Amino acid sequence: MHAKEWYKSHQEEILKEFFAFLKFPSVSAQHKHKKDVLACADWVEAYLGKIGLKTGRITGEGNPIILGERKGSGKGPTLLFYGHYDVQPPEPFELWKSPPFEPVIRDGKVYARGAEDNKGQIFYTMTAIRAFLEKHAMPNVTIKVLVEGEEEIGSKFLGEEAHKHKEKLKADHILVVDMGMGSKKKPSLCIGARGIMTFEMTLRNMSTDVHSGTYGGIAYNPNRALAEILGAVHDKQGSVVIPGFYDGVVELSPSEKKEIDFSFDREHHKREIGLKAFHEVAGFEPLEMAWLRPVFEINGMWGGYTGEGFKTVLPKEAHAKISCRLVPGQNPKKIFQNIQAFFAKLLPKEMEVEYANYRGEAAIRSSPKEKCVTVVRKAYEEVFGSCGLILGGGSIPVSLALAEAAGASVVFPGTALDTDNIHAPNEHFGLDQFEMGFEMILKTLELFDKGN
Amino acid sequence: MHAKEWYKSHQEEILKEFFAFLKFPSVSAQHKHKKDVLACADWVEAYLGKIGLKTGRITGEGNPIILGERKGSGKGPTLLFYGHYDVQPPEPFELWKSPPFEPVIRDGKVYARGAEDNKGQIFYTMTAIRAFLEKHAMPNVTIKVLVEGEEEIGSKFLGEEAHKHKEKLKADHILVVDMGMGSKKKPSLCIGARGIMTFEMTLRNMSTDVHSGTYGGIAYNPNRALAEILGAVHDKQGSVVIPGFYDGVVELSPSEKKEIDFSFDREHHKREIGLKAFHEVAGFEPLEMAWLRPVFEINGMWGGYTGEGFKTVLPKEAHAKISCRLVPGQNPKKIFQNIQAFFAKLLPKEMEVEYANYRGEAAIRSSPKEKCVTVVRKAYEEVFGSCGLILGGGSIPVSLALAEAAGASVVFPGTALDTDNIHAPNEHFGLDQFEMGFEMILKTLELFDKGN
Repeated sequence: MHAKEWYKSHQEEILKEFFAFLKFPSVSAQHKHKKDVLACADWVEAYLGKIGLKTGRITGEGNPIILGERKGSGKGPTLLFYGHYDVQPPEPFELWKSPPFEPVIRDGKVYARGAEDNKGQIFYTMTAIRAFLEKHAMPNVTIKVLVEGEEEIGSKFLGEEAHKHKEKLKADHILVVDMGMGSKKKPSLCIGARGIMTFEMTLRNMSTDVHSGTYGGIAYNPNRALAEILGAVHDKQGSVVIPGFYDGVVELSPSEKKEIDFSFDREHHKREIGLKAFHEVAGFEPLEMAWLRPVFEINGMWGGYTGEGFKTVLPKEAHAKISCRLVPGQNPKKIFQNIQAFFAKLLPKEMEVEYANYRGEAAIRSSPKEKCVTVVRKAYEEVFGSCGLILGGGSIPVSLALAEAAGASVVFPGTALDTDNIHAPNEHFGLDQFEMGFEMILKTLELFDKGN
Repeated sequence: MHAKEWYKSHQEEILKEFFAFLKFPSVSAQHKHKKDVLACADWVEAYLGKIGLKTGRITGEGNPIILGERKGSGKGPTLLFYGHYDVQPPEPFELWKSPPFEPVIRDGKVYARGAEDNKGQIFYTMTAIRAFLEKHAMPNVTIKVLVEGEEEIGSKFLGEEAHKHKEKLKADHILVVDMGMGSKKKPSLCIGARGIMTFEMTLRNMSTDVHSGTYGGIAYNPNRALAEILGAVHDKQGSVVIPGFYDGVVELSPSEKKEIDFSFDREHHKREIGLKAFHEVAGFEPLEMAWLRPVFEINGMWGGYTGEGFKTVLPKEAHAKISCRLVPGQNPKKIFQNIQAFFAKLLPKEMEVEYANYRGEAAIRSSPKEKCVTVVRKAYEEVFGSCGLILGGGSIPVSLALAEAAGASVVFPGTALDTDNIHAPNEHFGLDQFEMGFEMILKTLELFDKGN
């Protein structure tokens, strides 16, 4: 049976199970959802069993890592599919048009937290594996599936465990199904992801909030100090001025650069997300900035009174959550040290500064000539008619550790779009994107199975 | 009967009524407390009636303004006492050692929101009036009391109404009992208050939060833009660089300056509020900065994810609540315009900026030679042994409008201390401060009544 026909005849059932998966508020960042995270892990394991994989899990300090395996004849390669069942926090709730954990379909799109990232993508992957196994009772390829529960908080647990489970994870190719295809009209294959380094910081200058009339002009306001250091990170040309911030950046060779599609439609983004001011940097196109350059972003910043009305206080402390996306060749820990050194020079000497929750994972990038790239690219071409190559601006924190433990090369197939509102209110995933992903993974399995 | 004896014999009853007053969560900034605000206004009016004043109220668009009057023989001046029954928001609740609206005494201090600002100070004032009237059934002075309910949100209503009620407010001297005495050991009289100008601002660059991997390096992060403009307000010497920010500042004459006590104990503030970094400005002592110079403060600042864990978003918008304390000679509206012009030059052109909730009130300062100053100063001297003169860093937004409507000069008696934690968690007021205030107001009434 043809992929499209199989999909059509199973669609109702697929959506029902997909919705069940989406209903778990599996928010790894929030302790209150620990039970939901565990219940979601159970669901994933049961589902992998149901579609014909032998399952198991890695447990310990972190959220369960679910493993599924279907041994092949040995004539084909071993493919390891990677995804995650945890999701980003849904806040701010008031901006959702429908509740984040009650999936609904509007205009052909499924709306829910995780609809795309990553439940949507890992679920069409599992659906494709199911369809493939229904056709091939004894495939040539060995299929492994790893679905973890801490991607959205940095994959610390999997990062620590991966090297202890080399045998289980051993594979020829890793398919990280957690990135996008650039555009629906011209789907492209992603062959790299940026690294990520995150930390929180607190500036503290008093033991209590104080009155801004009494102390305004006397006490150094931590909000002011925070604005001063964060406002000094970029120069007027949009580059980061922190010494050492660009250390180690590996440039693409001209021939590699030619293979990658950097075309970018500003109007599309103005229309889709109402984007007004771009982060312009002289000498770089937008997608060069997103894929080939490290960036420094303030993901959260707060201090003082933020409620209704006014409260004339100088707050005792001010806070920021910072993330830096890094590119191949960069060492997250060193970048973190460089940032701390830069801030130390700018801050008033007496002010207390506290850093917490550092996490760092390096970037990864495959060559266009890697076998995993050429085969998946062929699957794209057969299903979609063509396939460009792109890079990812986002991060799959554990990619590098996983590649090293499995001894495999990595590719990032996926049908996500930049405009799916992931990590934001009203996250959504088009039913057409879901079906495209299903067909693309199914074709990939067939190609590897036939000896490609 | 001597003041101290009268106080001692009534203390239990006074505290009971004071606690009843403190229990109203009369937070004018929060709509959810509207009923509590109204109930508190009723309580104040009833209390003024109980101690022997004829009462009335000004109602309309704002919270009720309570008025009390006891006509004198006409041989003495008319004194108008000003205070407010509304309080600052109590947040953050988790930092209070006891609930903000359940007053308790610890170590000789009453802890509650409003314990000092302003329920404590207006209540000892009413108590002194009560003791005075018990002794003088027909006083020479006419006593007026005005207790409003919007001081903490800028006194907009009273500011608008004052000139319509000139006859009711007419007075020779206004005693604003909402400022401090510098120190307990050397109580001083405050003869001025800074003006205040407040506004909120929002920077908006997208219609939704977006993923910081996808858009980091492409979209201008509103948090970055906010940090850049707020971080550019002060130069390295601590002065504000906004053109026109110091326009109009009236300097004190050398002889006036000699009368004011600018002594400041840094160690005291390090100890009391754990202050680490001071807002140093070359050429100015701390209290010159707090009393004679306008300052720019970020009272609240927020954007992006501020909850537990991490969310790698670029927020669609970032916000700030700003207040500027102004000094005599400065025009709040012009300062606001200067700030907007300064920000407009620094912000990316395409980014949307929205200003809201502007409020501005000019500063006020009396001469040390004003009669209201000399008589209250004498009361301080007789009760406390000496009396220096100080200025206030805080603001009584409506002072100027009230002085103009009443045709009166203004003085700011009070026994508050900088370390009372007003506007902050664990606000408190010493029982000794309460008694000092009572004695000082009672003595002031006696002196004016005797023809001073």
